[in-house]
Amino acid sequence: MLNTIANHRSIRRYTDRPVDDSLLRTIVEAGTRASNTGNMQTYSIVATRSADVRKALMPAHFNQPMVETAAVVLTFCVDFCRFGHWCRLRDAEPGFGNFESFISAAIDASLAAQNVCLAAEAHGLGGCYLGTTTYNPDVIIEALGLPRGVMPVTTLTLGYPAEDPGRTERLPVEAVLHMETYHQCTDADIDRLYAEKESLPQNRQFVAENNKRTLAQVFTDVRYTRANNEHFSRVLLDTLRRQGFDI
Amino acid sequence: MLNTIANHRSIRRYTDRPVDDSLLRTIVEAGTRASNTGNMQTYSIVATRSADVRKALMPAHFNQPMVETAAVVLTFCVDFCRFGHWCRLRDAEPGFGNFESFISAAIDASLAAQNVCLAAEAHGLGGCYLGTTTYNPDVIIEALGLPRGVMPVTTLTLGYPAEDPGRTERLPVEAVLHMETYHQCTDADIDRLYAEKESLPQNRQFVAENNKRTLAQVFTDVRYTRANNEHFSRVLLDTLRRQGFDI
Repeated sequence: MLNTIANHRSIRRYTDRPVDDSLLRTIVEAGTRASNTGNMQTYSIVATRSADVRKALMPAHFNQPMVETAAVVLTFCVDFCRFGHWCRLRDAEPGFGNFESFISAAIDASLAAQNVCLAAEAHGLGGCYLGTTTYNPDVIIEALGLPRGVMPVTTLTLGYPAEDPGRTERLPVEAVLHMETYHQCTDADIDRLYAEKESLPQNRQFVAENNKRTLAQVFTDVRYTRANNEHFSRVLLDTLRRQGFDI
Repeated sequence: MLNTIANHRSIRRYTDRPVDDSLLRTIVEAGTRASNTGNMQTYSIVATRSADVRKALMPAHFNQPMVETAAVVLTFCVDFCRFGHWCRLRDAEPGFGNFESFISAAIDASLAAQNVCLAAEAHGLGGCYLGTTTYNPDVIIEALGLPRGVMPVTTLTLGYPAEDPGRTERLPVEAVLHMETYHQCTDADIDRLYAEKESLPQNRQFVAENNKRTLAQVFTDVRYTRANNEHFSRVLLDTLRRQGFDI
């Protein structure tokens, strides 16, 4: 367990070896063992292997090749469609078309996703999360036929690794761990906590390739700009409302 | 790994044995190994052990005793305060006060939380997630001194187990796993998928204790009512806006 967690890397290149139904069920079942709100299991996992559906998913993920080359593409969704259906069949009136229900279920879907990721890795697979899921949820809804009450949250591409990259750096634990209450960093804390990250050759190269002066500018001016974040926020909100969540 | 995942139970009763700083750092470091958007690590984990801070957290969690009795209470937060601070010190203008950034970071914080949960369990600890975190985020912000840009997402209480409950039932894998695209259940599917859950003695007792006719009604009329969900949605949205996220 601890080795699996410690050795996690995002794997973006895969061999041709398929993931069969039995292994797929095993890792999805591992996902369902995660804690979830009220044990309502208000999530679903769509497993895509066919060329047609991958093709429909590609633009949602900005044509990242893993969507085509992975053995399987798993889309984790908030799902109040199934639970609501059960409620109505049992003379119960569901009231889950709201922000709180969506957030709780999105957290639950994420906990399940991380179980699936680790279980897959323990079985020799490697994977990569696609954050693009919340950028283009409308395209994913269309591609996967997600009904009202269902909203994609994250995607995990999985396959047998055809690469063996090093682990990505992380900030020192002190950066994220706060004792008792939150402690705001001083400027000197920031300098110290980010020093190693900023000094890494790959990150220096990243700054140079993007013609920026600092690594932070690569994030704010190139990769995660305010304009893009605000555009994708509008798409995400509009899509959530269309799927039945009042926000 | 696979056994740890398969054997997960929510543990709500703990022995007096403390969790020391070294073990705390180890499990939090395991959390940081989870994938995260752009490796920005826009989350923080507040570890509370002192009686005073627990006391301030108690009402946020509706006085669930685990907040007082666990060896440590971990509050997982979206955190754009630290990342934004770094950006501004590096001549970069952060644009993360929006819905998309919040959701991405909330997913990342959840993936980290599940790593921490599993690492803790691999070290002999047991824990319980508190979904109340998104019900009363304003109380938690006050108790933990969370600055603008920081928003609590989930809480995990951890300690050495003083109970050994059975695993909670789950729906059959077919209920959550969809092949290729989403497949809507028929009424007969719902009857079949929920049959075992509805037949369990503890769930039948649950229905009887709550004077309801069906298990679904316990969820919609007692535990997760529309009125409560909508109330908590308003609190959550108001709090998010106050913490600097434009929605």
